[in-house]
Amino acid sequence: MTVDPYMRGRMVDRASYVPPFQLGEPLQGGAIGEVVASDDPRLKRGDLVSTIFGWRESFNAPAANLQKLETFGLPPQAFLGVAGMPGLTAWVGLLKIAALKPGDVVFVSAAAGAVGSVVCQIAKIKGHTVIGSAGGADKGAFLKEIGVDHVIDYKAAGNLAEAVLRAVPNGLDVYFDNVGGAHLEAALTAANRFARFALCGMISQYNVAGMPAGPRNIMLAVGKSIRLEGFIVSNHFNLLPEFQKDMSGWIREGKLRWKETVEHGIENAPTAFLKLFTGENLGKMLVKLT
Amino acid sequence: MTVDPYMRGRMVDRASYVPPFQLGEPLQGGAIGEVVASDDPRLKRGDLVSTIFGWRESFNAPAANLQKLETFGLPPQAFLGVAGMPGLTAWVGLLKIAALKPGDVVFVSAAAGAVGSVVCQIAKIKGHTVIGSAGGADKGAFLKEIGVDHVIDYKAAGNLAEAVLRAVPNGLDVYFDNVGGAHLEAALTAANRFARFALCGMISQYNVAGMPAGPRNIMLAVGKSIRLEGFIVSNHFNLLPEFQKDMSGWIREGKLRWKETVEHGIENAPTAFLKLFTGENLGKMLVKLT
Repeated sequence: MTVDPYMRGRMVDRASYVPPFQLGEPLQGGAIGEVVASDDPRLKRGDLVSTIFGWRESFNAPAANLQKLETFGLPPQAFLGVAGMPGLTAWVGLLKIAALKPGDVVFVSAAAGAVGSVVCQIAKIKGHTVIGSAGGADKGAFLKEIGVDHVIDYKAAGNLAEAVLRAVPNGLDVYFDNVGGAHLEAALTAANRFARFALCGMISQYNVAGMPAGPRNIMLAVGKSIRLEGFIVSNHFNLLPEFQKDMSGWIREGKLRWKETVEHGIENAPTAFLKLFTGENLGKMLVKLT
Repeated sequence: MTVDPYMRGRMVDRASYVPPFQLGEPLQGGAIGEVVASDDPRLKRGDLVSTIFGWRESFNAPAANLQKLETFGLPPQAFLGVAGMPGLTAWVGLLKIAALKPGDVVFVSAAAGAVGSVVCQIAKIKGHTVIGSAGGADKGAFLKEIGVDHVIDYKAAGNLAEAVLRAVPNGLDVYFDNVGGAHLEAALTAANRFARFALCGMISQYNVAGMPAGPRNIMLAVGKSIRLEGFIVSNHFNLLPEFQKDMSGWIREGKLRWKETVEHGIENAPTAFLKLFTGENLGKMLVKLT
């Protein structure tokens, strides 16, 4: 089962692009399971299925509500990460929203996370200079392993904009925002004219009580003709075939690596979820249920 | 001669899309003048010329550095306003940056200004519902005259987002930002999914000492898939012919109206400029030099 930052938004009772979780109901989310019994010919014992029922160890459901998973030789949980929603999020945000083009210098926050690490690697596959921000030495080492050119440990960096500009004195052209807050401000400061920001998430702000501080230098977007564009991966599911073609090729060619942080047992699912907000995960945060 | 908000940015000593004004040098800016003497056959006494020499009552210059103005029956100063840079700014921002499309509900700040009032009218010509924000009864009356559907007096409105949503309960699709600050926050709150914001200027912030507050609800751009895009009109001069075709047609058909606020004498140019920041101008702020 996967736990993902977007779930935090479902814990507030308001209208949004996904409805809030309901009190007294189990939480929902992506999971991959194995069929143990079936009286529908479309699914048989041992088949893998992809579901969004989430926080439960087993369930009964009509076969029509489940999606049979063909793994093409990948470990099943890859379809909760690089080959699934987080991977599509990275691919859509970088290539379609930020509209990556030749020569762009790319800055990625939460770069060692499930989405960020795929953004970094797609940008490297396409030959770009990549600056990745993450907290701590372990994540920094992983970013070096996957070819990130400049690693910023935001917990130790002091002024983030200065750190970015030390890494790339000519500035950045694309910013993939998973974090918001100080990272977004730094990216505006370090951005070149016509920079494009894909706003994927702002995890630094999800648990702020009241109103968080906004980017004080947003006015730079005018003078530098910067485009900031938010997106939600579910609005881009039509691009799944194109994504899967790219991604399966990259994985087959050994060009795409990933990390997992796994908690064990549904009783530890809340712990796994909370670790997303303290940055204790490296790569995809998963819960092994059985 | 025209005075415009963008000039404020040239009064800070920093790299920007236009270089800063220089100490000891006259300020520059758009003006229209009449040739009083010429020994170049390309210009003769009485010809009108458009210049960017700005804050001076007369000058000598090679004919090659001046642009002869053909007024097509319009008052010359219209080419400092609706038919000039502010008009092109409105047209580019609304139609190209915000990419206005059928059915969009349009919110405009500084709606009675040189740019804002043209944005409102282009949107009305194209059949859209328009909400215009401006300060005070005179500006509100002008906005009603030019067909704005919902006028918000931001000085009296209290909570701006609530005022916008009272006017258009189904929310806005396009926001043309001339003001920044509380207006930008209100627009984010009142925006629909896939809204597009043209960031033209943020006049509420130009004179703030230190760092102004940023939009605290910028995170809404993610969940609502909002695009915010800054632009500078000088990057779009290639669109002048298309703009002039549209604009001359609308003026000829009586579909486009404008107001001017005129100060007299170059000694009052600083006063004229400062009034932009206290909102004491209605429509285009001009200085009649002679």
